[in-house]
This record gives sequence, structure tokens and C-alpha cells, in this order.
Amino acid sequence: MDWDQVFATRANRMKASEIRELLKLLEQPDIISFAGGIPDAALFPTEAVTAAYAKVLSGDQASTALQYSVSEGYRPLRDWIVGEMKTLGIDCRAENVLITSGSQQVLDYLGKIFLSPKDTALVTWPTYLGALGAFNAYEPAYDRLTPMSNRETSTYHDAASKAGGRVKFAYCVPEYSNPTGETMPLAAREWVLDLADELDIAVIEDAAYQSLRYDGEGVAPILALDIARNGGDIEKTRTLYCGSFSKTLAPGLRVGWVVAAESVIRKLVLVKQAADLHSSTINQMVIAEVAANVMDRQIERLRATYSARRDRMLAALERSMPAGVAWTRPLGGMFVWVTLPEGVDGAELLAAAIRDFRIAFVPGKAFHADGSGANTLRLSFSCASFEMIDEGIGRLGDALRREMIKAAA
Amino acid sequence: MDWDQVFATRANRMKASEIRELLKLLEQPDIISFAGGIPDAALFPTEAVTAAYAKVLSGDQASTALQYSVSEGYRPLRDWIVGEMKTLGIDCRAENVLITSGSQQVLDYLGKIFLSPKDTALVTWPTYLGALGAFNAYEPAYDRLTPMSNRETSTYHDAASKAGGRVKFAYCVPEYSNPTGETMPLAAREWVLDLADELDIAVIEDAAYQSLRYDGEGVAPILALDIARNGGDIEKTRTLYCGSFSKTLAPGLRVGWVVAAESVIRKLVLVKQAADLHSSTINQMVIAEVAANVMDRQIERLRATYSARRDRMLAALERSMPAGVAWTRPLGGMFVWVTLPEGVDGAELLAAAIRDFRIAFVPGKAFHADGSGANTLRLSFSCASFEMIDEGIGRLGDALRREMIKAAA
Repeated sequence: MDWDQVFATRANRMKASEIRELLKLLEQPDIISFAGGIPDAALFPTEAVTAAYAKVLSGDQASTALQYSVSEGYRPLRDWIVGEMKTLGIDCRAENVLITSGSQQVLDYLGKIFLSPKDTALVTWPTYLGALGAFNAYEPAYDRLTPMSNRETSTYHDAASKAGGRVKFAYCVPEYSNPTGETMPLAAREWVLDLADELDIAVIEDAAYQSLRYDGEGVAPILALDIARNGGDIEKTRTLYCGSFSKTLAPGLRVGWVVAAESVIRKLVLVKQAADLHSSTINQMVIAEVAANVMDRQIERLRATYSARRDRMLAALERSMPAGVAWTRPLGGMFVWVTLPEGVDGAELLAAAIRDFRIAFVPGKAFHADGSGANTLRLSFSCASFEMIDEGIGRLGDALRREMIKAAA
Repeated sequence: MDWDQVFATRANRMKASEIRELLKLLEQPDIISFAGGIPDAALFPTEAVTAAYAKVLSGDQASTALQYSVSEGYRPLRDWIVGEMKTLGIDCRAENVLITSGSQQVLDYLGKIFLSPKDTALVTWPTYLGALGAFNAYEPAYDRLTPMSNRETSTYHDAASKAGGRVKFAYCVPEYSNPTGETMPLAAREWVLDLADELDIAVIEDAAYQSLRYDGEGVAPILALDIARNGGDIEKTRTLYCGSFSKTLAPGLRVGWVVAAESVIRKLVLVKQAADLHSSTINQMVIAEVAANVMDRQIERLRATYSARRDRMLAALERSMPAGVAWTRPLGGMFVWVTLPEGVDGAELLAAAIRDFRIAFVPGKAFHADGSGANTLRLSFSCASFEMIDEGIGRLGDALRREMIKAAA
């Protein structure tokens, strides 16, 4: 039968990202890739995970681990998250926490509860590609979130009306962002809350990289600031904090969470019940066990390894990049964001880089909701050895110099 | 902030089912419950699962098990499913299989790709409550699927137009259905395909209970019939077959699948990528291992235990039900469906049964998209011992007799 005829509009709009298709070609072993944004498997706490599976499958716990469970999530894990949130200045109870299958699933559910077609989502240019993917399924318009700008609040309303709906939320990755690696300063976070107050919209704080801090003391999460503004009462806040164990423990278990006012969590629990009943019981139990036992040690280990790779990449960029190229100096996370001279196209550079220099990265355009950012690219240092970094960034410099000469010609 | 103001319409329509709220009260240990529709935890293949986790976490496999993986699912598991499908007369390739987080997730994704608000879904009266929950998020209208009826095809079109959209699919549970336990005869399956051909819509075949057959030879799945109609070519079919490991191995791992034409699977892969990236890698690897090693033995064990409980429940009903009460005699699955005399309300009976007789079941109204079925109820025998069945069904008879006298007064 002609499937396209019966698919609803929103699904027809979903197309395989060209970038992802391109990146599939990269599994050739001689390519030095800075493309993937995944954790280094060599750093997984495999021993602790193995012990935890054995433990939750022994004795009476096994029946619980293998059985259906409540949509809200495994209570001891929610309790652990409550404790973790407290260390970030987020005072909440288990009723404010929903466990999900990775924080990506939270983004899907938030699209589902907030967005009717033609509503507007505010996102930074650039922003997390997976957030655009999750939201796109609900057919929103996008408007640009530019912290600290002087743009009149009414212009957000006007643009949203013109697009056919209302502004529903502002989404951002304040901590060591994917893709730029940047940290949103305190003043910018307050600015986002001010804007959200004026627009009376929700704030989605994607904190997937929160724990991967390599320098400094860190800035208070937006939800913590929101709670402080509301006399310590999370129930009055407008911020939804999305957390993940994928960058700290192991993505293959698919466990993340969202913290928000209980009325939002209750709504999300209904969405989750209808969508997949609950996240894997056994994996939630294992994560609870592993988090309680090794999280602090594990984060120290990740910080030591990743920060050394970041330093190495920054040094290599300093050495190898031609004049006119700029890049971020991330305080954490997995990414460095490179801005090329105007007129140099990241996608064209990638094609040449793969073909002639056997290196790869992600061109920056895909991270821009408006299709801008052609002269940007994302480098990930999380899985790269020092040798790969030195050699690969050197080759990137060569590829870039050639491309810049071509662009100037 | 006032959250309800910003939630999109579809989420506002989602409310906690009263039945589920009521059933939460049932965790009191002295209540004999036939309410839950879950597998008996005592029958989980815990030993095989434990060995499988240890295996996939040893050696090189651990890095794969704990890492991100492709949205399509773990290839060896998809290959195993292809083999399993062949035994049911469904000739397919791995490209026709997507792994999901339980078959519930397939229903959510199918709602997402097929349903625009006001489109019509055809479902039986009664049907699986969780399917209604999944579809409701996409705001469809429902029309009644009554196999073998002589209703004019044009009346489906007309009703859907009147509701503001188009008929998008027919959903059914042909095998040992939740909630009725009934099997759809071959002629009814062919009728569904005829109707779907005439309406040019998809057929969603929910086969969650497929393996739990206690009598007879089983009937060919609708997808198998559809393939046969199309010269053996699954790519030309309109049926989507949803399978699950939750009833055979363990629901706590959240692994299910969908089999369909590759063009549908490709669309669903995009939906899954945007919604939660992929299902738990390690759990997919464990299920692949356990399925290959113990599935046949496991199914034999489930059949022996559950069929004995079904027999016991049917015998108890025979003994204890007052005249005027009818019930199904399921050939498989977990449920018996009881029809009370007109005027006796299942929800009222439940309230009285919990209060005065300490027994529980699910009133049938919630399974009806049109709110009918007040005089029906669902009994599950999957977790009930012989003693519980004898005692509980006896009490149900007492409760019912009292309620029927009241109704007659």
C-alpha cells in the first residue's frame, strides 16, 4: 500500500538527517573521528555494573527487577536523585522526579505535553540536534533564544502569533553545552528566567553534561535559581531540569530523569504510562546501586581523562588552526565548537576532510533551527586519544587551509 | 505558574484512569485480586537471565552492552525475531523488524505516525485499555470494528469525515485478547483485511499473547494472511505486527518489536531516534541470549501453569456464577471476560466486592472506547493459585448474587 498517503503530516516531515547518514560512513577504521558525541566505553564502570546486575537478580529482588513496575520510576533511584539535586541547590522530593529512558525521552514527552502544531519553541542558535529532532515531531516553529539580548518581549509574542501559535517554552543546555561546550553565565540564566516570567512559559534545562565539570566551581542550575526566586518552593517554579546517567555511568541502560513541580511530573507520568508503561525496572535498580556505590569515584575518573583530552585538543587547535578560525574553551563536557571564516562551509569541508584527510567532525548547520551556521563545526574530544588528537587536529588544519584558499579564490 | 494554561490540548485530555487509581488501593494483602494482567514472577527465567547479563558483561561485549546503539535495535535479536516470525508464516528480513521498549511503545509510535487530531481509529468494543491510552495522546475519534458485520464500508468513511478526519487504521488483538481472552477466527481476520483493503488503511495486529496458546493449533496471524495475499511479499502488506517479550520472558527488561514493510519500519526508526534514541542495548543483548537458549522450554512451562489456572477458573465459574452470567472460554492468554445481566454495573460490583468480599477485578467499561460495557468485567488468572481461584471466584459469586438482587429490587 502507499504508506505515505496514510502517515500523518508530522511523520512526513521527519527525515533521516543527512549528517547522520554521512556519519554512518565513518565506521571505517582509518578515519580519525571527532564526530560522535558519545562517552568513552573504556571508562564505563563495568565491574560495578556487573556486580549490581548480579545483586538485583539474587534472592527476592529478582522478581521485582524482572516485573512490570510503576511509571514514576524505582523509588530508591528517585530518592538518590533527590539527594543529588540537593547538592546542586535544588530542594525537591521524590514526587518531583520522574525516571525516563534517557533524557532524550524527556524531550519527546515535553514536546508532547507542550507543543501543538505551530506553537513556538525558543532555542539557542546552535542547540542540541536531538532536541530539535524530538520537538520536530510535534511540528513547532522555532524562535531564537539569545541570552542577554535586548530584544523586546512583545516581539516573541508577535512572532509566535504570526507562526500560528503561542510561545510554549525556552530550551537550553546551560552546562558545557552540546554542541558548543559553553557554560551559560549566571546573569544569562537569570535573564532566561526573566524572559520566561514575562512570557509566562516553561524553561527546559537540559543538564545532560552537568557532572562533567573540569574547571571552576560551576554555576547554579536554572531550576535552583527558579526555586530561590520562589521562596524555596519548587511547586511554584517553571523550570524542568532534565538529567541523565548516560554521560556518567552508561548510556546502554537508557536511564535519565526529569525534576519539576509535582503537577508537571504527574502529567508526565500519565504520558509515560501511555507511551511505554515504565523504564526498564532492572536497569533502574542497577543504576540506583551503581550510583550509590561508585558515582563520586566514577566522576573523578571521567573528569581526569576528559579534561586532559580537552587540554590536548585546545593545545592542538592553538598549534594547527590558521588565522581567522575561532573556537570555544569549554569548562566541561565533550565538545569544542569551531567557527570558520565566513564563506567556508563546514559540510564541504567535511566531505573534503573525509576524502582526502581521513578525519571527521560534525558540520554546525544541523544544530541551527534556522539552517544558519554553515561556517561552524563541532569537535568531540571524549573518545580521542592524545595521538588521535595531535594527528587529527593537524590534518584538520591542513584541510582547512586548503579549503580557505579555495574559498578565497 | 499555571501549568494547565501552557499544556497543549492533547495532554489536558489525558487523565489518570479511575480504574487504575482504584486498583492502586488493592495492594492490601488480604484482597484476592484477579485485576492485574501481569505475568507470574515465579515463572520468570531468572537463572537464564542472570547468566545472560553475566555473559554480555564479560570480555569485549561489555563495551557494546553499555554503550549507545542504533535505533533499529540489536541485530542478532532482530535476526532471532525473523526466525520466530517464519514459524508463524511471516516471511521477513531484519529490515522489517524494529526493536522497541515493549510493545506498548509501538502503539505510541503508531499513534504518532498515523493519527492527526480527529482522525479515526477502528477498535473492537472492548479493546486493550493501554492501546486506547497510547492513541488518546494523539486525539483520535474511535469507530467500532465488529468483525464479520455487514456494515457498509462507506459508513466508516462517512463517520470519520463527520468526526473531522480520515480512518487511519484498524487495531485488534486477534490472539487471546486482552481483555476478553477470545481468539479471532480465520474468517474474521480475512474480514479485517478485506475491510482494510477497501478503506485503504493499515492494520495493527497486537500479538502480545501470541505464544501463550493452551489449546489447538492456533490461527495464522493477520500479517501472515496479508503476506499470502500479496504473493509472499511483505513489502506490499498493510499490516503491522506488534510482538513482546513481556509475557514470555520478563516485562522488566522492556523489550518488544514490530514487524512491517520496510518503508514503515524506516519511518518508525526515525520516530524512535527522535523519541528515545534506542531501547536498552544490554537488555536487547540479554533477551537475544535468553530467547535463543530457553524460549521453547520457557513457553512450555508457562503453558502448563497458566492453562491449569485457566481450567481451574473456568471450573470455579461454572460452579459459582448465578444464572444469567456468561463468560469466555479462552484458548490462551491471561483473561476471562464476564458478561453480567443487563443492569448490573461492574464498577459498582467492584466497590462492593472490595469492601465486603475482599476480592478485585477490572470493570469492563474502561475497555470500551464509547463508554459502554458497564455490565462486563475482566478476570485474570495468570497470578492466581488454585486456592485463590476457588475461594475468590466463590466470593465473586456471592457478591454478584447480592448485587443482582439489589439490581432487581
